Amino acid sequence: MINGNNLIGFSESALGERTYKTFNPRMNSENEWKFTEATSGEIDRAVSLAQDAFTVYAEMSGKKRADFLEAIANEILELGDEVIEVYMKESGLPEGRALGERGRTVGQLRAFAVLIRNESWRNLKIDEGNPSRTPTSKPDLRMTSVPLGPVVVFGASNFPFAFSTAGGDTASALAAGCPVIVKSHPMHAGTNELISRAIVKAAKQTGMPEGVFSSLNSSGIEVGQQLVMHPGIFAVGFTGSHRGGRALYNLASSREVPIPVFAEMGSINPVIISEEALKERSEEVAVQLANSITLGVGQFCTNPGLIIAIGSEALTQWIQKLTLEAEKIAPQPMLHPAIYDAFKSGSEEMTGTAGAQKVAAYSSEEGISSGAVLATVSGREFIQNSRLHDEVFGPYSLVVECEDAFELKAVIRSLQGQLTGTLIAESGEPGLKEIVKELQQKVGRIIWNGVPTGVEVSPAMTHGGPYPASTDSRFTAVGTRSISRWVRPFSYQDFPNELLPVYLA
Amino acid sequence: MINGNNLIGFSESALGERTYKTFNPRMNSENEWKFTEATSGEIDRAVSLAQDAFTVYAEMSGKKRADFLEAIANEILELGDEVIEVYMKESGLPEGRALGERGRTVGQLRAFAVLIRNESWRNLKIDEGNPSRTPTSKPDLRMTSVPLGPVVVFGASNFPFAFSTAGGDTASALAAGCPVIVKSHPMHAGTNELISRAIVKAAKQTGMPEGVFSSLNSSGIEVGQQLVMHPGIFAVGFTGSHRGGRALYNLASSREVPIPVFAEMGSINPVIISEEALKERSEEVAVQLANSITLGVGQFCTNPGLIIAIGSEALTQWIQKLTLEAEKIAPQPMLHPAIYDAFKSGSEEMTGTAGAQKVAAYSSEEGISSGAVLATVSGREFIQNSRLHDEVFGPYSLVVECEDAFELKAVIRSLQGQLTGTLIAESGEPGLKEIVKELQQKVGRIIWNGVPTGVEVSPAMTHGGPYPASTDSRFTAVGTRSISRWVRPFSYQDFPNELLPVYLA
Repeated sequence: MINGNNLIGFSESALGERTYKTFNPRMNSENEWKFTEATSGEIDRAVSLAQDAFTVYAEMSGKKRADFLEAIANEILELGDEVIEVYMKESGLPEGRALGERGRTVGQLRAFAVLIRNESWRNLKIDEGNPSRTPTSKPDLRMTSVPLGPVVVFGASNFPFAFSTAGGDTASALAAGCPVIVKSHPMHAGTNELISRAIVKAAKQTGMPEGVFSSLNSSGIEVGQQLVMHPGIFAVGFTGSHRGGRALYNLASSREVPIPVFAEMGSINPVIISEEALKERSEEVAVQLANSITLGVGQFCTNPGLIIAIGSEALTQWIQKLTLEAEKIAPQPMLHPAIYDAFKSGSEEMTGTAGAQKVAAYSSEEGISSGAVLATVSGREFIQNSRLHDEVFGPYSLVVECEDAFELKAVIRSLQGQLTGTLIAESGEPGLKEIVKELQQKVGRIIWNGVPTGVEVSPAMTHGGPYPASTDSRFTAVGTRSISRWVRPFSYQDFPNELLPVYLA
Repeated sequence: MINGNNLIGFSESALGERTYKTFNPRMNSENEWKFTEATSGEIDRAVSLAQDAFTVYAEMSGKKRADFLEAIANEILELGDEVIEVYMKESGLPEGRALGERGRTVGQLRAFAVLIRNESWRNLKIDEGNPSRTPTSKPDLRMTSVPLGPVVVFGASNFPFAFSTAGGDTASALAAGCPVIVKSHPMHAGTNELISRAIVKAAKQTGMPEGVFSSLNSSGIEVGQQLVMHPGIFAVGFTGSHRGGRALYNLASSREVPIPVFAEMGSINPVIISEEALKERSEEVAVQLANSITLGVGQFCTNPGLIIAIGSEALTQWIQKLTLEAEKIAPQPMLHPAIYDAFKSGSEEMTGTAGAQKVAAYSSEEGISSGAVLATVSGREFIQNSRLHDEVFGPYSLVVECEDAFELKAVIRSLQGQLTGTLIAESGEPGLKEIVKELQQKVGRIIWNGVPTGVEVSPAMTHGGPYPASTDSRFTAVGTRSISRWVRPFSYQDFPNELLPVYLA
């Protein structure tokens, strides 16, 4: 049952006076539940409990924390149909997507549980001493990783399960030994409440300290700001817009004690199509990209928002094919009226004042549905006009037609940092190494003959990239390596065994 | 021969009109050489060359970069006595220290050369695909680490070799594949010039691209600011004061494209002495700490600036012993009049308006020499007065006398982030685990029955810690793991072997 409460430690609390509701994109109307904004006092209480919890939780064995993560996964599954229904009511996304995303979320939690049952994730290093070294004896040094402290997680509008309450940021921070306070996403506060309750239930079941997890509601920015500025908070995870991520980064950097912010802020994910691929696989590539552009109504941070190719008759024909394929895909509701409005005005600006040429219009039905919007522009115009480089969140993609290979390289060089780059080409074509080298400097992941959407949860995944794709390209937000965002190296020098952690003695 | 030039790529340049000199602390007078401040144009030229060099250098094999690092080590040794003499003239430090520090610097370069001959430092991860996985095929993912781009290094006043021009920041960044621009330290610009010339010589010898290294002179802050704000710079390494490090961090965070700053800013390095140790080893511990406090005239970021113990007759006697031992150690010149003045006013403020009680005065000779300044304060006063928590750079240490174990714990909890914590105690004493646990939350390295000075170059070393010890506790500035500051993860998805780096194919 959803009652709109904040979950603070093991209690529920709704002391505030301001309330808000979530929105049903398929019905184009508000959902029934009323959520209560967290107050300053509730924020302080959640942080204070998290600090207390940290002193116990950080010291727990990996095995115990792993049991907790697995219990969360099980409790999420125990929520059954209810949470799937609430997810659909709050996001407008179809049931298949909800089930798939739940599977991903549960899978992530279990992957981190497996990771931390063995302490090798801590990057252990033992360098034995040598008392007889001259001129000075060599100390014994043993290095491990220790958790930073309580972490605040801001979930994403477009992934109510996998990048939100119990998503990758929360799973990796809890795995690392950091208590988590989730600032629930206002668009899916109901989904958050059910998932949060599952986490709290799992915490009680497995004997975790109160405060290891809290969830605070807010439809505005104040609660998030107060959390990020709180001296009891040691790091921040965020998935969302550049504007939101940068604001949190600026705030965290301005603190008396600055804290790290890992903000994954999306990108336009350039796809480069070679001349040979256009000749050999024109149809196939058009279908592939039309599907990728419209997948999830384009509401993915890895959505292919930019297609780069050398202009030719083949390209012109391909753009027509892409348009036809895209128009075959029925419009679907976007996540929220605000996202729909931003998509509409953003794509209209691109094809209006910003100067791109529209080649396929979105065929909007009633409500907040949209199909693809495609546009073209010359390489030169693209390079000269930085506005065309901005992300339009939704099923929008811009085809950049370059004069030649030199201009194509210049277009890549003009790009900002990206999560991904994709190269669609034929094996053995000349010039590919050069393109890979140029792309590599701009992106965190490069895909060969595929699409950027679909981010595998893998120990070898990089989901991050040079700014503005993320605020710190030295980390990934997806995959087990994302745990390194929340820990710091720590060394014991000449320590007796009885005072070392068992795994270092 | 020192001519005061900037070294920009493979050329020398002195286009500016402003000049400055370094200072000889032993003679208490200026040195003869005149250094020319870099101009805006020279800065742009160095960055532009570094950007060009990056496209080549980042792609070079580890073996080639390792040859370069080893050639630097050899060329530094080839400088022979001249650079040792200049070092001594610019720092006032004795010959033994100069030779030891040169050995450390050369050793660091060689350690990084060994590290990068094998590509495993890149944290490689191969996760093979599975085309028949349902519902979606599993992609093949191969993860490596790639260099960020050109890096700016600001050296430390107190380590003209090991934390400066060819020190740990430069060695680790060059090892990672990042070109380096050193903003030379104004107090040892001559030492920098000779070392820089050795690096350029090594670069030419080993076929490195021009711009892989440059050195720019400045006695003010503008050159450093311009470098940190330059869009062609991708990361910053700094060793020095909190004020300087924080200013660079703020600047880098304010950029349109923020860049990471690893600033190691020193700390007061608490030493906790147990009641049993005071009983059993009073004399020994007093000698050990008197030596550590005055080592290098206290000018180490790991200098023990804080000693914490429970008040007792034994402690009172120990403080007298410490005072006697400290007074036995002859005053030595500090690095620079500005550092001497800051030490004098800082230690006087601590024992004056800030309220600590002086127990041993520095016995200043002529010039800028100093011996130890020791003071005491109660635990309660220490907790209440944040000024007493500030670092006084030099041979100053404050003994905090606590009422009991509870107050001792409260004193530890009141501390800011530290590079190190030291526990001097007897094996098996009760309460040690609790102290270790509390200390761990504040420090990057914890030492058992030793002193914090002396930072071993080891793969298991953490030289960093919670702010303000460093701006990002997730990294270390010493040891081979420090290379991770300058790289980001990067993944290839479904890539054909011919386009993969050889070590991933």
